[in-house]
Amino acid sequence: VTEGTAVQQSATAARSGRRGRRAADVPALVEGARAGEARAVARLISLVEDASPALREVAAALAPHTGSAQVLGLTGSPGVGKSTTTTALVRALRAQGKRVGVLAVDPSSPFSGGALLGDRVRMQDHAGDPGVYIRSMASRGHLGGLSWATPQALRVLDAAGCDVVLVETVGVGQSELEIASLADTTLVLVAPGMGDGIQAAKAGILEVADVFVVNKADRDGADQTVRDLRYMLSLGGRHSEPGHWRPPIVKTVAARETDNGVDEVLEKVAAHREWLGSTGEGHRRRTERAAREIEAIALAALRERMGDVHGSAALGTLAEQVVAGGTDPYRAADELVASL
Amino acid sequence: VTEGTAVQQSATAARSGRRGRRAADVPALVEGARAGEARAVARLISLVEDASPALREVAAALAPHTGSAQVLGLTGSPGVGKSTTTTALVRALRAQGKRVGVLAVDPSSPFSGGALLGDRVRMQDHAGDPGVYIRSMASRGHLGGLSWATPQALRVLDAAGCDVVLVETVGVGQSELEIASLADTTLVLVAPGMGDGIQAAKAGILEVADVFVVNKADRDGADQTVRDLRYMLSLGGRHSEPGHWRPPIVKTVAARETDNGVDEVLEKVAAHREWLGSTGEGHRRRTERAAREIEAIALAALRERMGDVHGSAALGTLAEQVVAGGTDPYRAADELVASL
Repeated sequence: VTEGTAVQQSATAARSGRRGRRAADVPALVEGARAGEARAVARLISLVEDASPALREVAAALAPHTGSAQVLGLTGSPGVGKSTTTTALVRALRAQGKRVGVLAVDPSSPFSGGALLGDRVRMQDHAGDPGVYIRSMASRGHLGGLSWATPQALRVLDAAGCDVVLVETVGVGQSELEIASLADTTLVLVAPGMGDGIQAAKAGILEVADVFVVNKADRDGADQTVRDLRYMLSLGGRHSEPGHWRPPIVKTVAARETDNGVDEVLEKVAAHREWLGSTGEGHRRRTERAAREIEAIALAALRERMGDVHGSAALGTLAEQVVAGGTDPYRAADELVASL
Repeated sequence: VTEGTAVQQSATAARSGRRGRRAADVPALVEGARAGEARAVARLISLVEDASPALREVAAALAPHTGSAQVLGLTGSPGVGKSTTTTALVRALRAQGKRVGVLAVDPSSPFSGGALLGDRVRMQDHAGDPGVYIRSMASRGHLGGLSWATPQALRVLDAAGCDVVLVETVGVGQSELEIASLADTTLVLVAPGMGDGIQAAKAGILEVADVFVVNKADRDGADQTVRDLRYMLSLGGRHSEPGHWRPPIVKTVAARETDNGVDEVLEKVAAHREWLGSTGEGHRRRTERAAREIEAIALAALRERMGDVHGSAALGTLAEQVVAGGTDPYRAADELVASL
């Protein structure tokens, strides 16, 4: 079979995995993923995405093989050309001989519960390339944000030998902040004339961007957008402190046939990686990321215990008392914690 | 002093309260708030907003006097006319002789850390009316979302005798979902020709709206927007189940002098309140809201304990181990929970 077919089969395997039809042979899957089998990679991501019983076994089996992939975050408002830019970046990274993973995190539709765009609609350019893994992930129950499974999916691609993993999110809500906490280097895409400058200031993306990409730079207003960003960067924030990374601004025209500026983006990314390494900031970010992930898992476990308490009606009873004015939520929370 | 001056003084009191200059006499403040003193209301909201040491005392003192205010949530994309509509609703509610509280939750600027719009800029129409409390709240550390202090601020206004509390949020990120979990009745504002229909479907606000308000209905495309919403409602979701509330769609032209449709909005709100009461859904929502609040406070307390553990380096050490591939985040989380 061609790799393109393998990708499609892996999607099928993922779906049947979701229905729990086969028991997972985790060590064999991790072995397969490390040997570059697309189906094994897809199956492992499905296992972590579905919070299958094998999730903990997968996490434990992956741990020794992780830590080498470079994680690039890519975010921006709808319409700035994120998918096209991702495609162009993948093409350029492939030209450098790098293995590339792509996680595209889409907001869930409240009606379908699934991702708005499937794997097959996206990035058909790379469908037949064995050096590229592409995966769309839903952001279930977490509007516009990253799925809780994203860090584990990253580890799967890391263990599968990806040199670079691109995480693409739509820039709505707090996903920008989340992607910045996840990525080694965060690219923020803007486009001329979309009022992104103001949006950027509002949403705090100035604080999370390591590299700004002004895409569709052949359009009117591109230079103005660059000036706006430069001006806003001059206003302050962490970037202005000495020793801090000052985000460069790169103009691109990413399209199917022209990738103007994309190589320069990768140069800036390489420079940022250099800075991360030389200052120790890279290790600090990764440790902070791991700490947050551990904390989130621990909180989820504690929340589940509260759910057990809820099942035994304690939380419900406390809530009724608060509604009736018999107690306040702080005293009720004390009781809940004490009951754990 | 006139009430307008009192409002301004209360803002000053709030600011000095933030600096912690005066110790809080909580019972006297709650007494004052119940007697309708704007300064006492402002001071109490500041105490809860600043997470002052008196927060728990305030919560306990408020509890017996809460539960009677009707909470209306108002959300929509920037530019649909939320503030104008809020003003018009306040005017109409005042004409019915009701006491009204307004909490305007603004996204924080990453640079200022404060609210983008101050109390005094907004709704100057009501500045001199003793039956209206207006408060802008920042959404600190929670991008585009409600401040964790919002439920407590609601209780202050409730205890102060407000018949209706309007909570206005910009419809970005997940604030829509949050406001729906907070409000008895959620109004979702859209405007013609802003592509809000599609945005609505994406962001899941179809699922949270109890009443749709198509504002700026004198513009081209208003009828199309109504048809779009009606079509999307027909597609399914919880509204289509038997016995469920089917969100009405009201066209308004809310402006400084004309309030076309605003009375109809209030009729629909009253009908929804009726439905909430007759089906028991209102009590269910309030109990669910209290349960979530208790749970959030309990989780924050547990998180703080983890922070203590972090202070003693346990979380940091575990994170280093995860980065080094020596353990996985799930095992690390188990250890963290065990150490609490």
